[in-house]
Amino acid sequence: MLLSKLCGVRTKDIPSDAKMVSHQLMLRAGYMKQMSNGIYTLSALAQKTCLKIENIIREEMNKLEGQEVKFPVVMPKELWDMSGRYTSIGSEMVRFEDRNNHKMLLGMTHEEASVHLAKNWVTSHSQLPFMIYQIQTKFRDEPRSRGGLIRVREFTMKDAYSFHTSMEDLDKYYMRVHEAYENIYKRIGLKHFISVKSDTGMMGGSVAHEFMSINDSGEDELILCDCGYKSNQEVAECVEMPASNEAVKGEIKEVFTDDAKEIDAVCKLLGTDAAHTVKAVAYAIKGEDGIVLAFVRGDKEINEAKLKKVTKKDIVPFSAENDSRLCAGNIGPIGLKLDGGCVIVYDNSLKNAVNMVIGANKKDYHLDNVCIARDLPNIEFFDIAKVQDGDTCPLCGKGKVHIAHGIEIGNIFQLGTKYTDSMGMRVSGPDSKEITPIMGCYGIGVGRNLACVIEDNHDDYGIIMPKEIAPYPVHICALRLDDERVQETTNKLYSDLEKSGIECLFDDRNVSPGIKFAEADLIGMPVRLVVSPKGLEENLVEIKNRATGEVVKVNPDKAVETIKSML
Amino acid sequence: MLLSKLCGVRTKDIPSDAKMVSHQLMLRAGYMKQMSNGIYTLSALAQKTCLKIENIIREEMNKLEGQEVKFPVVMPKELWDMSGRYTSIGSEMVRFEDRNNHKMLLGMTHEEASVHLAKNWVTSHSQLPFMIYQIQTKFRDEPRSRGGLIRVREFTMKDAYSFHTSMEDLDKYYMRVHEAYENIYKRIGLKHFISVKSDTGMMGGSVAHEFMSINDSGEDELILCDCGYKSNQEVAECVEMPASNEAVKGEIKEVFTDDAKEIDAVCKLLGTDAAHTVKAVAYAIKGEDGIVLAFVRGDKEINEAKLKKVTKKDIVPFSAENDSRLCAGNIGPIGLKLDGGCVIVYDNSLKNAVNMVIGANKKDYHLDNVCIARDLPNIEFFDIAKVQDGDTCPLCGKGKVHIAHGIEIGNIFQLGTKYTDSMGMRVSGPDSKEITPIMGCYGIGVGRNLACVIEDNHDDYGIIMPKEIAPYPVHICALRLDDERVQETTNKLYSDLEKSGIECLFDDRNVSPGIKFAEADLIGMPVRLVVSPKGLEENLVEIKNRATGEVVKVNPDKAVETIKSML
Repeated sequence: MLLSKLCGVRTKDIPSDAKMVSHQLMLRAGYMKQMSNGIYTLSALAQKTCLKIENIIREEMNKLEGQEVKFPVVMPKELWDMSGRYTSIGSEMVRFEDRNNHKMLLGMTHEEASVHLAKNWVTSHSQLPFMIYQIQTKFRDEPRSRGGLIRVREFTMKDAYSFHTSMEDLDKYYMRVHEAYENIYKRIGLKHFISVKSDTGMMGGSVAHEFMSINDSGEDELILCDCGYKSNQEVAECVEMPASNEAVKGEIKEVFTDDAKEIDAVCKLLGTDAAHTVKAVAYAIKGEDGIVLAFVRGDKEINEAKLKKVTKKDIVPFSAENDSRLCAGNIGPIGLKLDGGCVIVYDNSLKNAVNMVIGANKKDYHLDNVCIARDLPNIEFFDIAKVQDGDTCPLCGKGKVHIAHGIEIGNIFQLGTKYTDSMGMRVSGPDSKEITPIMGCYGIGVGRNLACVIEDNHDDYGIIMPKEIAPYPVHICALRLDDERVQETTNKLYSDLEKSGIECLFDDRNVSPGIKFAEADLIGMPVRLVVSPKGLEENLVEIKNRATGEVVKVNPDKAVETIKSML
Repeated sequence: MLLSKLCGVRTKDIPSDAKMVSHQLMLRAGYMKQMSNGIYTLSALAQKTCLKIENIIREEMNKLEGQEVKFPVVMPKELWDMSGRYTSIGSEMVRFEDRNNHKMLLGMTHEEASVHLAKNWVTSHSQLPFMIYQIQTKFRDEPRSRGGLIRVREFTMKDAYSFHTSMEDLDKYYMRVHEAYENIYKRIGLKHFISVKSDTGMMGGSVAHEFMSINDSGEDELILCDCGYKSNQEVAECVEMPASNEAVKGEIKEVFTDDAKEIDAVCKLLGTDAAHTVKAVAYAIKGEDGIVLAFVRGDKEINEAKLKKVTKKDIVPFSAENDSRLCAGNIGPIGLKLDGGCVIVYDNSLKNAVNMVIGANKKDYHLDNVCIARDLPNIEFFDIAKVQDGDTCPLCGKGKVHIAHGIEIGNIFQLGTKYTDSMGMRVSGPDSKEITPIMGCYGIGVGRNLACVIEDNHDDYGIIMPKEIAPYPVHICALRLDDERVQETTNKLYSDLEKSGIECLFDDRNVSPGIKFAEADLIGMPVRLVVSPKGLEENLVEIKNRATGEVVKVNPDKAVETIKSML
């Protein structure tokens, strides 16, 4: 490929709205161009790379006996009504009416479609297990697209669906997929990735894992312990506090706290610390009048995912100031008057708490010296708090966890029978009784993985594309193409390399060596081959490894061989 | 791949609503499953075949220095406003609003997207020519989907866009693409295809060709002459009639024709033939009050595509009975009273016509003995009629054309500057004056081509998949897998074939040989390998060529080699 014709703008300028380095580099090196919010055109460099990533994914899926299929992007409402997700999924799903006023949607995931395909075909347990997958365009109307390809609205995804006769069989297959995913990440060149337990969200099911590319700019919080514990914050369990040895100070007393509403202000005023306060967090319930009120120790935060599971309510953060039932800034669990539709949840951190300050449900007043067990008997406690850096590990019970940030690069779910059940898929079992197949599903986004590979593989000069997925393994810089010998040697090397199946980017432009080298570093192909008049005087061409910076000079006749050994 | 796990239902039953043989066979052999009107899931057999077709297309595009990119499926209205197509395209384009009430659409084609990508990147004529292409999902809300994958709403398409400095350069490249398309069709196994001149339709531009798979069930009419003339009916020119030698019968006379309205009835009543009548066809103009009234010789039909070009109006067929300005059944060109917004067009076939019967614009009356040149002087004639079987060829002027039917399997357009102009893409020219790049665009639908390949390659027993695109080149039928020797031999052959890169479908089921053979014929893989206890007694396995029916029996040790030589 001649660089003079290569599609895409290359620039030194760092786009001002691009915060993540992969976003900056992909724009600067002409890998892509934004068309709309969260919608990009992939130019030749990115698309060629994505095709290589897709092929690696395809190979790993085929090793798992996966069968590649293709589900439609546009699906009818009726299909999604069967699982109930047409209504349960919010505005991230695009809905429209076709020319005959038939309600349609753009697929974000294809559980329903996979059951639709499998339903009439699979009639007997002997046809299980099997897995079908596709690599297809998806659209999710993300409220906040960000980071270039990290969070987009339109993307290419591999999604896979497996069907099993038993949980044991699903477990076994699930582990094989887990391993295949690790292979994929290694092969495409990701350096820092882990899998963590995760929330099942809109997918349903019980067990789920997310694969995370460790990255300080990642939006996911990961809870890690040296013992091997790895979890997404969303599902990380808090260890219960041991009973306190602290001496009880006395009876409850009401104290005037004036306009001290925030934890900090109250602590300062009363000379206590946040661990001796109770924080109230209010949530509205979607589609209902009631509210959810969560109480947690003042030094902790509410984990909304866990709170949702406990309450089984679709909650959204909510300002207590907007609700006459609540005395914002002075809300506390004693003397609270709420009607029937409201739910109060207490976090485990309060279980053995003594000498606490709580809101008095009365403007400008708090209650001090509250001992939860004594003053609030007969209440139930739940695990609804976020794990914090330094908390005790819930797995080993000894180590202290630390928090890392990550970008989700794949997820796997044990779905159970949510979809097969609701869509009425039954097969004859071994004892001729009917069984409902158990499903797993497995997703991996192609473009986001490319972005994470660049996050993991770059330097100050540009991208360092791993050779397994590099669109062109070799970048040829011919200095002074007006020199006949340079021209001849370069043309021969270009042709010889392409003939041996090594695709090259050939910088055929009449620009300075400085520009050529800078753009070669920016684009980031694994091997740079320089042909120059000076080198040829000594009968040498220069071969540079983009990743290590290593340079070798070889006779042009040895160049193809040398490059082959590097790739 | 074990047949027992292969995704897709196989059945002997011919689906009652499937008229085309490719549609029937793809459903019967489990290649796909319908999800909604014009929307299919491709199961493993079809998707694997499509991937092979896509790779052949990709190879041919890369030979043309094409750069593969990926445009978004979902695009913003603003982009399509620039070309004016957001409003000019009708309800076949899906439009919706995203969560922020931003108007979006599903791409049917990507001229606007290609200019969007190229615009900032290409600044100089020296960067031209180039071609970018993608293989991507498209959605067109077809009013009438039909024939399985022949006409669907969602489909995978390769669309390519080239940019040039001159018409000469575009012409040259256009011919190269034409050749590449022929290569593609040959390689995927189409047997009867031609290219014909075609209408440019919503694409704009002047020159266009469609590639047609010749098929009696095709909806396109093709006009062909032995001299080499090939045209879609839509753009086929009619040869002008030579002046008639017929003696003029006399002056115009009004005749009472009672309720004879149709050509046939009028002819019968007046004892003349259709070639001596004038037919009036009325069209409504979209968005306007006026009508278009076309007059053509009674034995001919109006070609709406040509009429649209002449009138430059967006017309739709219209019943004259709904318009008080027209005397339905008695409309004629003499004494017609229409207001300003109406357009009257006369076909060339009327130019030298004498002794004609025309409507009198008066209920139950016609005019006889009309001589067009004498009685309607000063009118202009246009070519707006369909070419008919046996008409003189417009190219050689001697041969008689015949009409064939075809299915469009690809199209190429010389777009000119419609998009670059409207989107303001300018590059510096060689003399430093700016020029507007000239575009070509080139489309080919993957699924429809697969369907046409099956139309061209099948017999009474099923599909005969060409080896170049067969999902599994070999179909292994093991008869009596409970026989140890059969099991051993089959497993070894399966493994040896897969190791040599030949993918196999392995019928591992415990069913009768009759069912195995029938399904092998139905699925249609190129080579069938049968391992049976009887064969092994003589130390032989059977290898059958699906296309020719040829059978050879060889020692199991020679089977891989024999199969390789067949593929």
